[in-house]
Amino acid sequence: MNKKIKKINASILIIGNEILSGRTQDKNIAFISEWLNSKCGITVNEVRIVPDIEKIIVENILLLSKKTNYVFTTGGIGPTHDDITAKSIAKAFRVKYEYNKEAYTILESYYGKKKFNDGRKKMAKMPRGAKLIYNPSSAAPGFKIRNVLSLPGVPSILRSMIDNCKRYLTSGKKVHSQTINLYTVESNISKQLGLIQKKYKNFVDIGSYPFFRLGKIGVAIVTRSTSLLKLKNVKKELFNLIKLKKIEILKL
Amino acid sequence: MNKKIKKINASILIIGNEILSGRTQDKNIAFISEWLNSKCGITVNEVRIVPDIEKIIVENILLLSKKTNYVFTTGGIGPTHDDITAKSIAKAFRVKYEYNKEAYTILESYYGKKKFNDGRKKMAKMPRGAKLIYNPSSAAPGFKIRNVLSLPGVPSILRSMIDNCKRYLTSGKKVHSQTINLYTVESNISKQLGLIQKKYKNFVDIGSYPFFRLGKIGVAIVTRSTSLLKLKNVKKELFNLIKLKKIEILKL
Repeated sequence: MNKKIKKINASILIIGNEILSGRTQDKNIAFISEWLNSKCGITVNEVRIVPDIEKIIVENILLLSKKTNYVFTTGGIGPTHDDITAKSIAKAFRVKYEYNKEAYTILESYYGKKKFNDGRKKMAKMPRGAKLIYNPSSAAPGFKIRNVLSLPGVPSILRSMIDNCKRYLTSGKKVHSQTINLYTVESNISKQLGLIQKKYKNFVDIGSYPFFRLGKIGVAIVTRSTSLLKLKNVKKELFNLIKLKKIEILKL
Repeated sequence: MNKKIKKINASILIIGNEILSGRTQDKNIAFISEWLNSKCGITVNEVRIVPDIEKIIVENILLLSKKTNYVFTTGGIGPTHDDITAKSIAKAFRVKYEYNKEAYTILESYYGKKKFNDGRKKMAKMPRGAKLIYNPSSAAPGFKIRNVLSLPGVPSILRSMIDNCKRYLTSGKKVHSQTINLYTVESNISKQLGLIQKKYKNFVDIGSYPFFRLGKIGVAIVTRSTSLLKLKNVKKELFNLIKLKKIEILKL
């Protein structure tokens, strides 16, 4: 039944010293993951954050593009010296790093011939054979080559472009998710929760996440599965446990 | 001069399906990185986010503990079935996973003998030989074994514990950082910025990050170095460039 589901996965490679130094709080990981999950049925297996160093980017592109069905990169496709993502990906796949005609035309008409300076022209340079990911907010396109999709690091621009990635992705089976918020502590239910997880090991993923709300301690129980039926069965068992332990449910 | 600086680095391993699924926005990476940079002079070289799967945690602990001076893990040290960080680290280092006497005593006295159930007892289980990272907010300690420091995933608890990591770390030379915010676009200065970066390649790191503020576009130029003198020289060159291009500086 559930075993033949086509599972499609992805990894995310965040490129940028500003994230590693703690100067900038990343906001793209959660957004891309959530979008892949809910819109494409694609699960993110691994995320890496690496500095703007060519050798390291090349290594990670080669490794992740073998390890997962898709690789999403963010950052390093702007006009400045520290933007080396496109060049590094070209190097990884041993293809030329050159002007993409379509990108060049888009950027030239966006800026106008006079204002289309060297920095801006750089944003039209991509690995040979790359296909564009159009950018409705600031023109400079991302690109897709083989199973790697490169997006910018600025969250608002990335968000405006994400739907244009869809044409390059094969969707997997949708993962359904349910959350029950309980006013209890994890250790009160950890044993029984472990038993339920064991029983549904291959079908449902059960996570338990403590929270604080209005001075009270709670636990969010998150269940995830491609099977709505299995999810329903787990829910039943959870409600039996909640009843047995007389736990208050928090309605949001 | 600058070449003999003791560079100490770290990696961060974020453990948790909830981060990979996009359900939870990570807040620990930026916090730990910033703390390591500013308080310990330690640079974060790499971050990875991985699921709650023992084999994957073991692999990453082994790899990162060889690759960097310190490894910080977050998540997976609570009482539930999906908390497998301590067990996985024990497996990675081939030591026993057992009750840590001191942690057991701390937790027993915190909860009281009657309420010290199996879930809570689990939080006293650690790799043999682990030293504790005390937790002033919710008692359950983190731990340090070899060059790996394990912290919880809940940001408020992690933040309350971070200073207790310091005794286990050798500090590196402090990295100084300066930011100049300009009302301009990256492509206007990218060429000259690239030349300045080239000149100071081995001493100063120059980053360029676009921002939007009150409807205007700007660029933050961030310079980082262990040498205040070199930083000053770069600043001089930047101000020459700003003057030449007649760029407005944004004072924050």
